[in-house]
Amino acid sequence: MARKEAVAFVGLGLMGQGMAANLLKAGLALTVHNRTEAKARALMHAGARWAGSAADAVTPGGILVTMVADDRAVNEVVKGGAGERLGAGGLHLSMSTIAPETSRELRDWHAARGTHYVAAPVFGRPAAAAAAKLWVMYAGEDSAKPRARELLTAMSQGAFDFGTDPGQANVVKLCGNFLIATIIESLCEAMNLAQKNGVDRETFGDFLTATVFNTPVFHSYAPIIAAMHAEQIGFELKLGYKDMKLIRDCAERAAVPMPFASVLRDRFLSSLAKGRGDMDWSQICLAAAEEAGIDPGAGR
Amino acid sequence: MARKEAVAFVGLGLMGQGMAANLLKAGLALTVHNRTEAKARALMHAGARWAGSAADAVTPGGILVTMVADDRAVNEVVKGGAGERLGAGGLHLSMSTIAPETSRELRDWHAARGTHYVAAPVFGRPAAAAAAKLWVMYAGEDSAKPRARELLTAMSQGAFDFGTDPGQANVVKLCGNFLIATIIESLCEAMNLAQKNGVDRETFGDFLTATVFNTPVFHSYAPIIAAMHAEQIGFELKLGYKDMKLIRDCAERAAVPMPFASVLRDRFLSSLAKGRGDMDWSQICLAAAEEAGIDPGAGR
Repeated sequence: MARKEAVAFVGLGLMGQGMAANLLKAGLALTVHNRTEAKARALMHAGARWAGSAADAVTPGGILVTMVADDRAVNEVVKGGAGERLGAGGLHLSMSTIAPETSRELRDWHAARGTHYVAAPVFGRPAAAAAAKLWVMYAGEDSAKPRARELLTAMSQGAFDFGTDPGQANVVKLCGNFLIATIIESLCEAMNLAQKNGVDRETFGDFLTATVFNTPVFHSYAPIIAAMHAEQIGFELKLGYKDMKLIRDCAERAAVPMPFASVLRDRFLSSLAKGRGDMDWSQICLAAAEEAGIDPGAGR
Repeated sequence: MARKEAVAFVGLGLMGQGMAANLLKAGLALTVHNRTEAKARALMHAGARWAGSAADAVTPGGILVTMVADDRAVNEVVKGGAGERLGAGGLHLSMSTIAPETSRELRDWHAARGTHYVAAPVFGRPAAAAAAKLWVMYAGEDSAKPRARELLTAMSQGAFDFGTDPGQANVVKLCGNFLIATIIESLCEAMNLAQKNGVDRETFGDFLTATVFNTPVFHSYAPIIAAMHAEQIGFELKLGYKDMKLIRDCAERAAVPMPFASVLRDRFLSSLAKGRGDMDWSQICLAAAEEAGIDPGAGR
């Protein structure tokens, strides 16, 4: 590209920090904003400019990347000034996990101002974000995709085009989180059954990951569900709940009964009720263990 | 080993045929029995001896391998003559997927006759059985394990010792089938949601298996759930139902609530009610699609 893209990156959580750092490494001119300024310090040290608001971070006609927590937050950023400032010729690359309908509404809101919109949610935990090893699914206006891909390439190990309806990228992402959550819940249930039949949880997990389930998702979750303790927070439980709710809402809108999604929504809700929203989402295992009369703290 | 083991193999279904063939290849003296004699023909051609009953297949003091359909069938084989004939010094290698309690009862029944019992259920579809690529989890009396391992090595790519309580091998196997069934059900639900949001099922499956779920279980099931059609029967739906029922029974006995197992039991039961017991167990996707108003035959 002849010109150097001016990129505003809003949302420097566990994922956003690593993603923004990779845009810097790719040589893009990066301005960042986050509710908590402290989270921007490492990026500023690496050459990013700080802006006091999302709108101030935006260059008219440039690119706005959002990696904020939820639908409400994306809407606040876009409609609170950043979207207006982006204006004609600008591109909003919307990378949060949000509802397909929110994405479609944002597309329409931007289109009325001559702004392009590409939904590009990602798979991968924070370590993958930092290592530019995310997987991206993206969808939106075809003419805006080459600009989007320059950024996606810098942040990921692969980006897959899901067509022109941005909502389709979001539904695929929601389905992916649903599939991972079902693996977490099924491991919780199975480990409780194994334990109460005398099988050591860790031995059981080691067997699974050495044989039929020798796969990254099981390697990530089997040990922390066996231990009923996560040293690191890869994805906050309260955000997991948000996604289970989005799945249920999306399923209701599409008239697709999803009994597993209903179970998961309640499991996450019960975990929130017990004050576990800031833990890693794998820690729904605590509620599952308690239901089975297992003391989650007994092993430590 | 100095002496050549006399092995009776009972149960020549989709799995048993391949497993027995690998015992022959390993040079063991094999006598086979099955309700339907036709299924023994290839093995007899390869050197196995046919016996008209399970009891007739057994050499006193030898090894009896059972790979029959369910708890009832194992009990019928053992208590219908084969167990008595096996007698003192014999070994029953019980490889079917059965309830932990059935296994523990069989252990006691044999012990009263001086017969050893090792539970050794397996993971793997029929192609893996034929290629000696199964995974085995085994448990039972330690003194009987060297004899068991000679056979397990010939049939598998790895055998894992789960201790002296045979029920523990069976509960691990049940948990494994439960984990695979949850992946099947979650793929059914997710693909229905994706489809009703405009995403092509096959494209969605290809994305999953190319990225976060680039793993054998997903590679096996994503394409046939996308197509809502299985060319080959890897595991019959009616046997899947049996396992979901065993899981539920085992969970009830251990007082472990397993909401996913309850959903699965009903999903399989509904599929049986619709006359689909002889299909591959992935075809619970038909009932899931019908519930979502999707015509399973529309793509063909």
